[in-house]
Amino acid sequence: MIVIGIIGYGYWGPNVLRNFYNNKDVKVLACCDTDNMRLRKVKELYPDLKIFNDYREITRNPKIDAVAIVTPVSTHYEIADDAVSNGKHIFIEKPITSLSSEAETLIARSEKSKKIIMVDHTFLFTGAVKKMKNIIELDELGEIYFFDSVRVNLGLFQHDINVVWDLAPHDISVMNYLIPKKAVSVSAVGSGHINEHIEDIAYLTVNFDNSLIAHFHLNWLSPVKIRKTLISGSKKMLVWDDLEADEKIKIYDKGVDIETREGSYNLLVKYRSGDMWSPQVENIEALKLETQYFVECIKNNIKPFNDGVAGLEVVKILEASDKSIKNGGKKVCL
Amino acid sequence: MIVIGIIGYGYWGPNVLRNFYNNKDVKVLACCDTDNMRLRKVKELYPDLKIFNDYREITRNPKIDAVAIVTPVSTHYEIADDAVSNGKHIFIEKPITSLSSEAETLIARSEKSKKIIMVDHTFLFTGAVKKMKNIIELDELGEIYFFDSVRVNLGLFQHDINVVWDLAPHDISVMNYLIPKKAVSVSAVGSGHINEHIEDIAYLTVNFDNSLIAHFHLNWLSPVKIRKTLISGSKKMLVWDDLEADEKIKIYDKGVDIETREGSYNLLVKYRSGDMWSPQVENIEALKLETQYFVECIKNNIKPFNDGVAGLEVVKILEASDKSIKNGGKKVCL
Amino acid sequence: MIVIGIIGYGYWGPNVLRNFYNNKDVKVLACCDTDNMRLRKVKELYPDLKIFNDYREITRNPKIDAVAIVTPVSTHYEIADDAVSNGKHIFIEKPITSLSSEAETLIARSEKSKKIIMVDHTFLFTGAVKKMKNIIELDELGEIYFFDSVRVNLGLFQHDINVVWDLAPHDISVMNYLIPKKAVSVSAVGSGHINEHIEDIAYLTVNFDNSLIAHFHLNWLSPVKIRKTLISGSKKMLVWDDLEADEKIKIYDKGVDIETREGSYNLLVKYRSGDMWSPQVENIEALKLETQYFVECIKNNIKPFNDGVAGLEVVKILEASDKSIKNGGKKVCL
Amino acid sequence: MIVIGIIGYGYWGPNVLRNFYNNKDVKVLACCDTDNMRLRKVKELYPDLKIFNDYREITRNPKIDAVAIVTPVSTHYEIADDAVSNGKHIFIEKPITSLSSEAETLIARSEKSKKIIMVDHTFLFTGAVKKMKNIIELDELGEIYFFDSVRVNLGLFQHDINVVWDLAPHDISVMNYLIPKKAVSVSAVGSGHINEHIEDIAYLTVNFDNSLIAHFHLNWLSPVKIRKTLISGSKKMLVWDDLEADEKIKIYDKGVDIETREGSYNLLVKYRSGDMWSPQVENIEALKLETQYFVECIKNNIKPFNDGVAGLEVVKILEASDKSIKNGGKKVCL
Repeated sequence: MIVIGIIGYGYWGPNVLRNFYNNKDVKVLACCDTDNMRLRKVKELYPDLKIFNDYREITRNPKIDAVAIVTPVSTHYEIADDAVSNGKHIFIEKPITSLSSEAETLIARSEKSKKIIMVDHTFLFTGAVKKMKNIIELDELGEIYFFDSVRVNLGLFQHDINVVWDLAPHDISVMNYLIPKKAVSVSAVGSGHINEHIEDIAYLTVNFDNSLIAHFHLNWLSPVKIRKTLISGSKKMLVWDDLEADEKIKIYDKGVDIETREGSYNLLVKYRSGDMWSPQVENIEALKLETQYFVECIKNNIKPFNDGVAGLEVVKILEASDKSIKNGGKKVCL
Repeated sequence: MIVIGIIGYGYWGPNVLRNFYNNKDVKVLACCDTDNMRLRKVKELYPDLKIFNDYREITRNPKIDAVAIVTPVSTHYEIADDAVSNGKHIFIEKPITSLSSEAETLIARSEKSKKIIMVDHTFLFTGAVKKMKNIIELDELGEIYFFDSVRVNLGLFQHDINVVWDLAPHDISVMNYLIPKKAVSVSAVGSGHINEHIEDIAYLTVNFDNSLIAHFHLNWLSPVKIRKTLISGSKKMLVWDDLEADEKIKIYDKGVDIETREGSYNLLVKYRSGDMWSPQVENIEALKLETQYFVECIKNNIKPFNDGVAGLEVVKILEASDKSIKNGGKKVCL
Repeated sequence: MIVIGIIGYGYWGPNVLRNFYNNKDVKVLACCDTDNMRLRKVKELYPDLKIFNDYREITRNPKIDAVAIVTPVSTHYEIADDAVSNGKHIFIEKPITSLSSEAETLIARSEKSKKIIMVDHTFLFTGAVKKMKNIIELDELGEIYFFDSVRVNLGLFQHDINVVWDLAPHDISVMNYLIPKKAVSVSAVGSGHINEHIEDIAYLTVNFDNSLIAHFHLNWLSPVKIRKTLISGSKKMLVWDDLEADEKIKIYDKGVDIETREGSYNLLVKYRSGDMWSPQVENIEALKLETQYFVECIKNNIKPFNDGVAGLEVVKILEASDKSIKNGGKKVCL
Repeated sequence: MIVIGIIGYGYWGPNVLRNFYNNKDVKVLACCDTDNMRLRKVKELYPDLKIFNDYREITRNPKIDAVAIVTPVSTHYEIADDAVSNGKHIFIEKPITSLSSEAETLIARSEKSKKIIMVDHTFLFTGAVKKMKNIIELDELGEIYFFDSVRVNLGLFQHDINVVWDLAPHDISVMNYLIPKKAVSVSAVGSGHINEHIEDIAYLTVNFDNSLIAHFHLNWLSPVKIRKTLISGSKKMLVWDDLEADEKIKIYDKGVDIETREGSYNLLVKYRSGDMWSPQVENIEALKLETQYFVECIKNNIKPFNDGVAGLEVVKILEASDKSIKNGGKKVCL
């Protein structure tokens, strides 16, 4: 039985608590939040839990094996550092920290104490992303040409982070998971309309060491909600539309065949067009699978694939994005 | 009666010829193309037309008042310059020229000879763009926050120009028409997969002197066809989906109201959500209206709004885009 | 404070209980079900409730003012009759009874005892239906030409009632609410594939005393889920797509204008086509509003519009549908 | 070389003429129409054709092998009879005749004179219908449960036939082609709003000798255009959406598995849900293929599958539909 404490009960915390609570290998011992209203809610739903205002009541409780940190990103490092120092495994919200250097410190300390850090990139546990991972591993798409992601809607405005930090961690973590290539540079542009200091719309490009290009449109000011990713490869092409109820993934047997390459003017490009196929995707709550995986990693001493290093890779891109935006879209090397 | 000669009978030329031919104020005298197969087709459909291989038979024919130049962009300047030098009015395909300096020369010469240059930015004559122009002029959207355009599909690959020069002129001309603000800088990224020297996917950002941001996704390698533009303003938001049969434009009574601005942490953002409205748009062939407008401009000595200067503005952005792509997305001032 | 007992805690019961429980003017005293597993669930979520297996513990409890009957339709009459006989107000699932004669008996008895019967036609309390009611009352559509409803998907198979009794009550209640005309006859066809005695696909037509025609496609065997209603009138036309997240109702300024009617060969039909408009609809849980309305009706002695008579009208059409199906689509008068 | 004459140059005639004209095995000799404006149009586009007002100039011309009859249905019999009597092969618009008895006469006479009658059920030559035929022949769907077709839009009103005769021939011919079962009875309901004597909205049910049921919604008064057919079988289910640009056919690996059938209350129904697959469909003009097939049938003395008998089957259902509508939906045996 793994004993877990939950730190933070805001927007996402209730889901994390519920999933750990319903895991038969877990005992959730306590939950803390600075807001007493929220704690009262915890007590109503889970009368057996201890509640605290101070997270140290959890990070320093010797009965607790692991903590889930579900607080604003600006507080992640302080809390996670305290938890690691006290020998806890950590399940932490994305992005892992506000600075890549903080993530590096946490990684180093957790490795030393042989504790697990798992960053909650929930999307990696959805049926759609798992199916795409499988398709790409089977080389169905061939060489990947581009990864184009659009995540836009009206709101939910954040006051402490910009739209890139708010929305892009989802898509960057998916890209890093699906495409086993190292990003080498980033360029980004953005603009703040509601608060000029906080970008509410941004475009982020990630470059690799070949012609692969990844691009992310992140937007809090769109009249319509779009959650669509295009991934084109030399063999097949894929569309992931997360708002589709039933057909989230569509694979197109489409492409371009090059007949000759003796010179750009002699290049004979032929289009290939075939069937479309929409595989069924698993429909289990992603967070349930992820929290189960966290427990298994602890029990079997496995390094999770969504570990601190995976979280750090995301933060590096977010940091580079901020830097590039400040420099008018200038390329920032990673 | 305006006497017109058509230069070029490839992909778009047949439409230009047909529209001028059917205009009762026009006599189409001749058509030229270097390809005799195409000329034979002209002769079949329009037995009364003279056909030539050399464009000079048209530009230097004293009976001809105006020429339509519907050839590859690399040939535009030479032909247009010869036409202007011979005192012809010019209807020319977009983009006007390969270099902004060439466009400037053409503009100067045509002004001197008091002849009209009209650049064929056909989209400006569609019912959808005219309706959006009307909506924006009535200030229905309020202050424009962003202009986001996606124009992607599989192919049609070009061998002499990249995807930006191929597809973006449409969207840039629409942006310039709808938003009466001067673009100040451009940053762009792109990548070539089929031919590494010719970008087949690119992202272009245009900046203005305020927080307005425009962005263009241009792609020859997408599995799905998308032609969608989002325009958000402080009052209302608009989506233009050119692939919709009936509801091309949707206006959302949605937005963000700011209650206080005493500091970014005290900012109270409120979402406003209301009805959606899809105005009917005129359904007349845009090129028919544009060619009629060309004839009227000649007859009444009117300077067209889609004149050489409008064409030059587009080329400047295309040039800056190329420069920025070569420099890894660095901002290029206009 | 109205004291309420809940009878039945299967598929829909939990929603009814929760809504009454959260109503500040209501005290839910007890819940009964024949299934002890379900009762245990009730006790977990609502430890203060009394639980019973026998509904008579509720219908005959003098402390209880009103009962909610959320059981299979075949049990409705027996339970409701016992409740009415014991002076309770009744909130009852649709369809009110299996036979119209049973409904008539209940109505007569409840009128005698001056108690309320409200039939849970939840859809009438959705934002979409309320908005359509409003539009039709304002005569925006003009004379209604037809009401065409499609409610199809794969499953949920019922073992005791056919697809008409399962799905049509929703749409018939909406039709009766929106169109203040008396249905005069019904014809229906259907077919059972999984169980030949129970229609799993059926088409129902309802006729009125003018050219208005209503039609319902009900289907448990469709590969895709469709919930779409078309209502065309002489002035405007409306589409209600209940699966749309944001634009559930679209009103089309479209129609047919008749120029002359001197004879069918001289009839000049002109199409009118204008803007489309999608009004925002209220987004409050319909059952919350309906349960509040039930409480208000009791408190203020109001006859609800979705009363026993409204429920009876629906059952009459369902009965006629069965009769017509058995007679190969023969028209059955109401 | 087959010599063909075209009778009728209204809405569809130009397509028939063009396709025969472009067929290298055909010489189109003449075209007739009662409207001289139309004949002038013919002369402009095809100066080599002879034009007439009287169809007998074509049916009785000994140089002509075959005639295409593209006139209003009320004139079909007279013209076709004259053509058959004069030994011509016939390509005739759907529906073949206004009365089934007329069709029977034509069939008998053409058989006697060993001439071909082909009814222009163009849809049978579309890529979508050919693909569905192929899927059903491979028994991919299993036993067919239902065929549900919706063909609705605003207009195009006809003055001499109702909406069933106007629109249903398409869908009935597709049903007859795809489902090799004999329809046994028909019931239909309908209503006329613009002209009370001509139904502008109708619902048609076709019954077979098993539980298979076919249904057609035909409507000239719908605010939206829908062209959608659902075909569910015991193995798989199919949706044909003719308005989709790219994915016209979708096949769902969905269904219902029955575990036991000892009695309706013990029936265990299990839903099966798997991948969706959208096969590419051929994109060649259907009428081109059909006119080629007509020529091949003549040359090789083949009886076409869309012959007079196929046309007769459609007319029988249309006749029965009229009869049923007049009798309030009463079942009419075929």
